[in-house]
Amino acid sequence: MLGMTETKNDLDAASGARRVEWIRSRMPLLAQAREDFERTRPFEGHRIGMSLHVEPKTAVLVETLAAGGAEIAGTGNHGSTQDDVVAYLNDLEVDGRRLTIFGRRDDDLVAHHANVGRVLDAQPSILLDNGGDLAAGIVARGGTASILGGTEETTSGGDRLRTELAGLVPFPVIVINDSLLKQIGENKHAVGQSVAESFMRITNLMVPGTRFVVVGYGWCGRGVAHYLRSLGGKVAVAEIDELKAFEAALDGFRVSTAVDLAPWADVIITATGRPGVVGAEVFDRMHDGAILANCGHFPWEIDVPALLASSVSSRAVDEAIDRIELPDGRHLVLLAQGRMFNLAGRSPKGNSIQSMDLGFLLQTLSLERIALAAASGSLPAGAQPVPDDIERTIARRMLTAMSASA
Amino acid sequence: MLGMTETKNDLDAASGARRVEWIRSRMPLLAQAREDFERTRPFEGHRIGMSLHVEPKTAVLVETLAAGGAEIAGTGNHGSTQDDVVAYLNDLEVDGRRLTIFGRRDDDLVAHHANVGRVLDAQPSILLDNGGDLAAGIVARGGTASILGGTEETTSGGDRLRTELAGLVPFPVIVINDSLLKQIGENKHAVGQSVAESFMRITNLMVPGTRFVVVGYGWCGRGVAHYLRSLGGKVAVAEIDELKAFEAALDGFRVSTAVDLAPWADVIITATGRPGVVGAEVFDRMHDGAILANCGHFPWEIDVPALLASSVSSRAVDEAIDRIELPDGRHLVLLAQGRMFNLAGRSPKGNSIQSMDLGFLLQTLSLERIALAAASGSLPAGAQPVPDDIERTIARRMLTAMSASA
Amino acid sequence: MLGMTETKNDLDAASGARRVEWIRSRMPLLAQAREDFERTRPFEGHRIGMSLHVEPKTAVLVETLAAGGAEIAGTGNHGSTQDDVVAYLNDLEVDGRRLTIFGRRDDDLVAHHANVGRVLDAQPSILLDNGGDLAAGIVARGGTASILGGTEETTSGGDRLRTELAGLVPFPVIVINDSLLKQIGENKHAVGQSVAESFMRITNLMVPGTRFVVVGYGWCGRGVAHYLRSLGGKVAVAEIDELKAFEAALDGFRVSTAVDLAPWADVIITATGRPGVVGAEVFDRMHDGAILANCGHFPWEIDVPALLASSVSSRAVDEAIDRIELPDGRHLVLLAQGRMFNLAGRSPKGNSIQSMDLGFLLQTLSLERIALAAASGSLPAGAQPVPDDIERTIARRMLTAMSASA
Amino acid sequence: MLGMTETKNDLDAASGARRVEWIRSRMPLLAQAREDFERTRPFEGHRIGMSLHVEPKTAVLVETLAAGGAEIAGTGNHGSTQDDVVAYLNDLEVDGRRLTIFGRRDDDLVAHHANVGRVLDAQPSILLDNGGDLAAGIVARGGTASILGGTEETTSGGDRLRTELAGLVPFPVIVINDSLLKQIGENKHAVGQSVAESFMRITNLMVPGTRFVVVGYGWCGRGVAHYLRSLGGKVAVAEIDELKAFEAALDGFRVSTAVDLAPWADVIITATGRPGVVGAEVFDRMHDGAILANCGHFPWEIDVPALLASSVSSRAVDEAIDRIELPDGRHLVLLAQGRMFNLAGRSPKGNSIQSMDLGFLLQTLSLERIALAAASGSLPAGAQPVPDDIERTIARRMLTAMSASA
Repeated sequence: MLGMTETKNDLDAASGARRVEWIRSRMPLLAQAREDFERTRPFEGHRIGMSLHVEPKTAVLVETLAAGGAEIAGTGNHGSTQDDVVAYLNDLEVDGRRLTIFGRRDDDLVAHHANVGRVLDAQPSILLDNGGDLAAGIVARGGTASILGGTEETTSGGDRLRTELAGLVPFPVIVINDSLLKQIGENKHAVGQSVAESFMRITNLMVPGTRFVVVGYGWCGRGVAHYLRSLGGKVAVAEIDELKAFEAALDGFRVSTAVDLAPWADVIITATGRPGVVGAEVFDRMHDGAILANCGHFPWEIDVPALLASSVSSRAVDEAIDRIELPDGRHLVLLAQGRMFNLAGRSPKGNSIQSMDLGFLLQTLSLERIALAAASGSLPAGAQPVPDDIERTIARRMLTAMSASA
Repeated sequence: MLGMTETKNDLDAASGARRVEWIRSRMPLLAQAREDFERTRPFEGHRIGMSLHVEPKTAVLVETLAAGGAEIAGTGNHGSTQDDVVAYLNDLEVDGRRLTIFGRRDDDLVAHHANVGRVLDAQPSILLDNGGDLAAGIVARGGTASILGGTEETTSGGDRLRTELAGLVPFPVIVINDSLLKQIGENKHAVGQSVAESFMRITNLMVPGTRFVVVGYGWCGRGVAHYLRSLGGKVAVAEIDELKAFEAALDGFRVSTAVDLAPWADVIITATGRPGVVGAEVFDRMHDGAILANCGHFPWEIDVPALLASSVSSRAVDEAIDRIELPDGRHLVLLAQGRMFNLAGRSPKGNSIQSMDLGFLLQTLSLERIALAAASGSLPAGAQPVPDDIERTIARRMLTAMSASA
Repeated sequence: MLGMTETKNDLDAASGARRVEWIRSRMPLLAQAREDFERTRPFEGHRIGMSLHVEPKTAVLVETLAAGGAEIAGTGNHGSTQDDVVAYLNDLEVDGRRLTIFGRRDDDLVAHHANVGRVLDAQPSILLDNGGDLAAGIVARGGTASILGGTEETTSGGDRLRTELAGLVPFPVIVINDSLLKQIGENKHAVGQSVAESFMRITNLMVPGTRFVVVGYGWCGRGVAHYLRSLGGKVAVAEIDELKAFEAALDGFRVSTAVDLAPWADVIITATGRPGVVGAEVFDRMHDGAILANCGHFPWEIDVPALLASSVSSRAVDEAIDRIELPDGRHLVLLAQGRMFNLAGRSPKGNSIQSMDLGFLLQTLSLERIALAAASGSLPAGAQPVPDDIERTIARRMLTAMSASA
Repeated sequence: MLGMTETKNDLDAASGARRVEWIRSRMPLLAQAREDFERTRPFEGHRIGMSLHVEPKTAVLVETLAAGGAEIAGTGNHGSTQDDVVAYLNDLEVDGRRLTIFGRRDDDLVAHHANVGRVLDAQPSILLDNGGDLAAGIVARGGTASILGGTEETTSGGDRLRTELAGLVPFPVIVINDSLLKQIGENKHAVGQSVAESFMRITNLMVPGTRFVVVGYGWCGRGVAHYLRSLGGKVAVAEIDELKAFEAALDGFRVSTAVDLAPWADVIITATGRPGVVGAEVFDRMHDGAILANCGHFPWEIDVPALLASSVSSRAVDEAIDRIELPDGRHLVLLAQGRMFNLAGRSPKGNSIQSMDLGFLLQTLSLERIALAAASGSLPAGAQPVPDDIERTIARRMLTAMSASA
């Protein structure tokens, strides 16, 4: 049995390694950082405790940090960990050190929390956090004194630091997600592209002439609306914030509420970050065969429980496509059960490699800044934005990587 | 053993049935034709011999013809037959009749030709042909007298009828592919969409700012160039025909030869229908890491043998992605080994469902016309275009199906 | 009095010369032809009789023909002649020869016909015709024997040669307007650009979010619809031909009839070439303040007489903008009284200089072909398309002139 | 003589009235404000001192304020005052009160400053300021105590209040130009549209395929770049700020410095707000016949003195088009002598009517807020942004005015 497990792990590690290779070859920003780090070794003597979605692109980030001298103890998110990437990383030996990544896709919540605990047990000095879990854990343990600082991937983690954990975190935490580079490069362009690709990939439907309603005109919604219109779709925007609605109207979109636009829509895509923005009132007015999809982070924007509760029956008709029969004879189509459909279906790739190269360089240089600032104490405690000089450095490197001048 | 085979077939048929369902629910043009045919029964007493790529969309075409009273004996193309769809169709009973579809994905060329023979053995009166194989076979057998007429899917089949088979085919054959509706709906828009989707799906690369060279500005090339530019790509067109080059320049594209544009290209996509349009002279001038892909029907547009012959090594780095190392230290990336990359990789869906609904209605109404004209002798012998009234009927129905006025 | 007239003419000629200079400096195709002609002198010994709209761009065409050795006797169209350009041309001396251009803007129809007669009196051997007036005149005079051949600018002139004058014209006439280059370069792109520019210039209204209905999806309509949508307009297409309507729908436009779209429209623009396509049924359904404009050649597409007949009052509210009050309290706005509004208002420039450079090179090389073919008799009699080699030559030169490869 | 002058004034007033009518009929936001003001009379008992560019759109603003009960004493900008609009306004009688607008187009700077003095002499209680001239004047006079507050149209006026006049202005001043609505509606969309229109109107050149370099990717530059690309132009962006350069690259533009892009450019358009961004180094590298134009507020972005100093000769070849001959045989073309070319040439209309309706409603409601807040003292002293509730109110009204939901 042990033998078999080992074999399984070896296979996993090999699969992970192969999947990481193409990705790594298209991440020039991290490649340059790795090359720099091999000389400068900013993390020498530090252990980074990491909590982050584990997929092949993440592996390239981890390799980069390790090349900077970091020891790494990490765990993935609950439910999305890719086992072969974990196996690959645990197999990796950098300068004679081994990385330690906990977690498997099938872990239940109890197991996941245990993994977070194990990361903290490893006594990290720097945190790469996600949703504030590591920061909250270290506060609960009374162990904040040993932490130099860290980064936080999400906006909601940043909010948590500023409210629930306000005053309790004596070290600096750079919040990555509010970076303008990330908003433009990832939320607008990468999500826009990924939603367009995923709609075509999953449904195999024609885009030109199809009537889309994009709910929300934040950075993601802007991207989704523009990409779908570029492909020939007829796009309307549902937005309740007047200023964003105004921007959408000036951008040439039809603008109204989701309820008003519902009868017209062939497809409704939510991108608001808010719960229940599409519910019974919308379902009631959609035409037979219309499609519902969500690309927001949480699976709550479409009120799926209400939809199913009011339905006669529901069944999968293709990968990530459910057909919901309603009592009045209409049916609606739900993609990915209301979860992020741009990460669903066969062979979802998520955000483009280059957009993650950008996002992870934000992580990398912010973590380097934390390590360097520890000595000088030059960063204030608590949540703070990515330093302007880091944003500008990355923007310049990205322009070079894109050969933007040609 | 027999039991197991039966079980396998049953599973296949169930899988095929499931995959066909979503497709069928999004083919309103064929649905309407089927409903009409159930009343009018234009194929009553006829057997249609079919040679056509067998995938789920094809199944809906076959069901439609069967609903019109046709007996059907068919075979797929060599190498692309989807076994579960064959199983599903062979299981189908329409009005007490069973369909007969020959062929499996693993058939070698000998087996494939045997299948074509079996279709002819079934003594069809109407042919749904592909590349002129059935027409040539029936001529070789001296059996043309029993044929009322038929359709031909491809342009090259039409050419064959006008040259090699000129004067030998005493029955009318309507050539589907030259239809303006098909050029616009399928070659321009469906291929354009599918190429954009497949590039993103297979490579996971960012489109905005990426430098694409589209080789060829026929209907397919036009679609590919416009769709990629719409997504933010920088697109140049390589075209040797002056008139098409002029059109591309007026459409705002940079226009030159593939050789001239090679050093600038991040990605070269061929869409010309001609062999060897991208060869050694282009490979030599491409930058390190540049990508080659083809969306033309035949896998000969990129001179892959020359590329491999001049390479140091080649290996797959991801699904449908090969990395080719060159002696001068550069590497190039080849998608789908030079075959249609829009049908490659994990989960390729091909042209959009609605574009095939359109294309197959062209087939359906042309076959109906063949059956109806047989009595009156109102169609001339030999290759001929889709009758204008059929084009107009379909255009009108498509506008309705798209709810184009909303 | 004579003195004053001379002074007036001199001023006119100077004004004409100045206006022609900028134009000439941006017509590289005609510049190259002129340079070639100075060596090859294809029109040596020939007199070209010309009937064509006289404006600064036309002057550059005339200079080019003169540089090829032609004597020229010409007249403008009725009502659009620009007097300073006539003065400039009549002042011009090329190789010691003077050009003779008849006509003034204020000429009435009688005077205009007299001018056509004077052109024929000058005994041309080659005709540069417009609407078939010169060809019909020469037939009426029984003077066709002295004509080597000619060109015809318009489609309707070509039609006239093929019907009314069929069999009566023993010399070749190359019909310019059916050229694919002209359809793309002029009808689609130049008219599209000019309509967009003129709408903004005349009305000073915002384009993004404005609802346009483009009536007709021929080459002009395609251009107009695409250019307005590109600028952020919401664009619908009214088209009764099923095939063009299909193309518009696939291009992502809302498609219906003008009557259906009327209540939605902020602006209706006609581009069909047909009389009365927008009439009472449309006027009745338009909203208060909606705008009517036409860009088709003839001022008959909007039924202006019916509109005025049903109105309470009408008055100009700005240059080329009339406000029409209706009995039900609504008002409509009519641009340029239903004439081509892209040639109306203050400072209309018409089609872009380069598009006319292209169109006039078609004229120039076709006239050269007529002169050269006269000796060999290699062109058939009657109306015929621009020879393919001329189209390809011009396409190549235009690509060079545009520096299309950069 | 007096009689003649009166006659001239009468003619002017009539011309002004006519030009204002079309504009007023397309300013629904001001129309609604006027209707509201006729009931609420927020300016009853107040005199507004105004310094603002006087053209027909401004007249509608003035009428609106007058309808709210304001007495108005105003002056235009130096050099741009439209005399017929002044005449029209001075003729206007609202509720028995006459407006007083000083200034004529031909006023020299001394005369202009005298007019500013006359506005202050009129003892206004509220200021509608432009560049801080009125605020600085009132401070210099020691008369600030009589001022309730005001608005400032420009960003540079806002800066002046925060620096030179900091602490000296005891009343609130709402700075209009920083409003997000104004940035989007005016700087991006209205300037973008106006630049595209003006380039076509003035030069009569073809946009598709033309190579534009837009210098600056602020709100104006973004608009200009997007509008020109939409029309088929090849557009590159020159931007030295890394973050904006990054955004431009992600938006799919070629991005570099003006010097690098100079040889490629057919047209360079400056939109930076900074002096000398295009100078000798750029001129030296531009190709023969390339075009220079500026749309930034000040006429200093192109270093015209340096260009002329290094030239052999310069002359006008058409309205707003100068041809500059250089010693090396090249010539460059300069539009509008480096001033805002979107306000130059024959018949310039400037920003779209609706965008100014929006901008002037910002003025109107901000001035109303100043008047209402005077009693309660609810606004702090000094420069401040447009209150959020006003922005949202206007956004909602604009959506309604655009019928954005259709």
